[in-house]
Amino acid sequence: MTTIKNYMLDVGQRAKVAARQLSRAATGDKNAALHAMADALQEQAQTLISANAKDLHAAKENGLDAAMLDRLTLNAPRIALMAEGLRQIAALADPVGEITGLKYQPSGLQVGHMRVPLGVVGMIYESRPNVTADSAALCLKSGNAVILRGGSEAIHSNKAIAACIQAGLSRAGLPADVVQVVETTDRAAVGELIRMREYVDVIVPRGGKGLIERVSKEALVPVIKHLDGICHVYIDDKADLDKAIKVAYNAKTQRYGTCNTMETLLVADGIAPRVLPELARLYQTAGVELRGCSRTRDILPGCIVATEEDWKTEYLAPILSIRIVTGLDEAIDHIQTYSSAHTDSIVTEDFTRARRFLREVDSGSVMVNASTRLADGFEYGLGAEIGISNDKLHVRGPVGLEGLTSQKFVVLGDGHVRK
Amino acid sequence: MTTIKNYMLDVGQRAKVAARQLSRAATGDKNAALHAMADALQEQAQTLISANAKDLHAAKENGLDAAMLDRLTLNAPRIALMAEGLRQIAALADPVGEITGLKYQPSGLQVGHMRVPLGVVGMIYESRPNVTADSAALCLKSGNAVILRGGSEAIHSNKAIAACIQAGLSRAGLPADVVQVVETTDRAAVGELIRMREYVDVIVPRGGKGLIERVSKEALVPVIKHLDGICHVYIDDKADLDKAIKVAYNAKTQRYGTCNTMETLLVADGIAPRVLPELARLYQTAGVELRGCSRTRDILPGCIVATEEDWKTEYLAPILSIRIVTGLDEAIDHIQTYSSAHTDSIVTEDFTRARRFLREVDSGSVMVNASTRLADGFEYGLGAEIGISNDKLHVRGPVGLEGLTSQKFVVLGDGHVRK
Repeated sequence: MTTIKNYMLDVGQRAKVAARQLSRAATGDKNAALHAMADALQEQAQTLISANAKDLHAAKENGLDAAMLDRLTLNAPRIALMAEGLRQIAALADPVGEITGLKYQPSGLQVGHMRVPLGVVGMIYESRPNVTADSAALCLKSGNAVILRGGSEAIHSNKAIAACIQAGLSRAGLPADVVQVVETTDRAAVGELIRMREYVDVIVPRGGKGLIERVSKEALVPVIKHLDGICHVYIDDKADLDKAIKVAYNAKTQRYGTCNTMETLLVADGIAPRVLPELARLYQTAGVELRGCSRTRDILPGCIVATEEDWKTEYLAPILSIRIVTGLDEAIDHIQTYSSAHTDSIVTEDFTRARRFLREVDSGSVMVNASTRLADGFEYGLGAEIGISNDKLHVRGPVGLEGLTSQKFVVLGDGHVRK
Repeated sequence: MTTIKNYMLDVGQRAKVAARQLSRAATGDKNAALHAMADALQEQAQTLISANAKDLHAAKENGLDAAMLDRLTLNAPRIALMAEGLRQIAALADPVGEITGLKYQPSGLQVGHMRVPLGVVGMIYESRPNVTADSAALCLKSGNAVILRGGSEAIHSNKAIAACIQAGLSRAGLPADVVQVVETTDRAAVGELIRMREYVDVIVPRGGKGLIERVSKEALVPVIKHLDGICHVYIDDKADLDKAIKVAYNAKTQRYGTCNTMETLLVADGIAPRVLPELARLYQTAGVELRGCSRTRDILPGCIVATEEDWKTEYLAPILSIRIVTGLDEAIDHIQTYSSAHTDSIVTEDFTRARRFLREVDSGSVMVNASTRLADGFEYGLGAEIGISNDKLHVRGPVGLEGLTSQKFVVLGDGHVRK
């Protein structure tokens, strides 16, 4: 324990020193490092694949399921994609140092904001080795040092990726401690990381609900996270039928295991008889199990009874709960009661109802005539995302470069004093 | 204990319901409530003064010092000022619902941000009854419900002010639970308030260091706070002498007990012999005790020896520590080591050094040629402030209406789905 504690304190101290240096780094140097990292990943593709083979071998012995094994796997196309991701982040505008709103006050004092890094980011994640490269790149570009704590199941892959990251930093002349990978798989290291308030400014956990719950419960450092993705689509009676079917079908079936997948479909009673039978046919073809309220079951007699528990459940599976509501007010009430504040969408052609939904639904992303599956850093033009926030403070929705920064005040005077 | 817990849970639940209603309130209704509150405060001035007399009487019996008594006192001019503060907040632009950065993505999806309230704010504060009116007004305008927990020494004053706030809410037709004053002086109520994660979105403590340390250590709800104000002025050797003297004198002497008062003066060795004797004369006239490094004492032989402890101390008193540095790099190093990240200022005519100072000093407010005493919501044009943040997440520096909000994504499509 003492050894782990001291090891983590050392990691934290190094990160803090590196963060100060990185906060002043030129945009060009950060971009050069990102390109050098991408090159190193592609040059070292065989090394990465060999390291990954060790992880895959151990994972199979430990009985990881097919989905986990797939997430863990590195191959040439995935390595190329990872490298391409780094080059895309290099191409994004540097958020650090941006000055906005610099205005003259009546006193003649100029006051504005400058965007600055948060400092040190602690990433805690599972399985997918590409998170190592993505997170390192997003933190680097936003001027933050990062401490990466990947899952033990990916330790060899992560170390091999880290070596490429280090090569990139070194080629660009940036300090090595800007990106550190926790070398121990001891879980005590996580406990230390989330409590080092002097050295770590924010924790971003990514992985299963268990991991995120544990981290947010025990952390003393602020956490950017989302726990659940209970997302809704509401089909208003003024909806365009084609759009409604397209959006509701995509929001459920485009991928089942993601946090922005729709879990509950709300339908206005005026349109339900016209839209539900066709949707049910499509869902059944896709193998989606439907669970409905009593009014839904009047229209879809084969549908299973939805219970109170269904409205609260993130299925992450081909299951959908359906509720018929009298209109917008009831839809918003349902969403405010059961939504996890991740992403909720209305399908309507009615201007005033769209406007009300956007204002009144208090979620990280609120949408009109769009699939909840679009709640994503790439789709939003953020370039990439380090995670998603369901919280209200600091940042909401997909978290990109800006979410890894905050703003300080810059104040310019001419010998100004307080009267 | 159970009674307090149940009482606070009830307060929290009411606040959450009220917050939802308030988040949709029209700007005009919120402004009408603010004006009605201001009117009520002035109409009820005699009632407020009588209630305040009870608090003052008890405070004197409890032996509160003169400064505390002064902070606690309400009189006609102070009540007028409080009312004027509410009218000023009514005059500020409503931050809620502002949509920014709404841009078309390559997919044709429009993505932007909408500014939204945080939800429920828990204010914990001491002594000054005007904080009750200010905080209620700032939270109301920013669409947040607020739970106010003032000091027991001001309970009668706070209840009388709360009655005026209630009258204002009622005249404007807004829900009474938008502003709730905790009716018990039992300290267990604070413990509950800072742990009710389901009902409270952010805690803002204002008062002595002891209060703030206790709150931030024990809170499960995120806290916006500052602990220390160890602020620096650095006089560069390219400084204009007149500005340097004006700024350094004002930053220390304009008020001693405030968090944005300068505690350490850093002076470049090249200018020290020209600027320090005159400054020392002014400080001595004002009764400021000077503590200097050895090089300072070469120039000011009467000066007391400054120890390592001095660089770490927020005096909140007519004491100033002075250190001579070789130049900008040493000044920044000193600030990064000892500053509490509140406010730091450089006095210089050198463009490149000013630019470096603004970028490299990592504090809530960074200034050029201005007194640290200007770090203030009014001076910055925020209209008013609910507190100051020395933290890095969410908001830094003086916290006004914007700091009480965050941004959700708004996404507008035309039947858009994920490919």
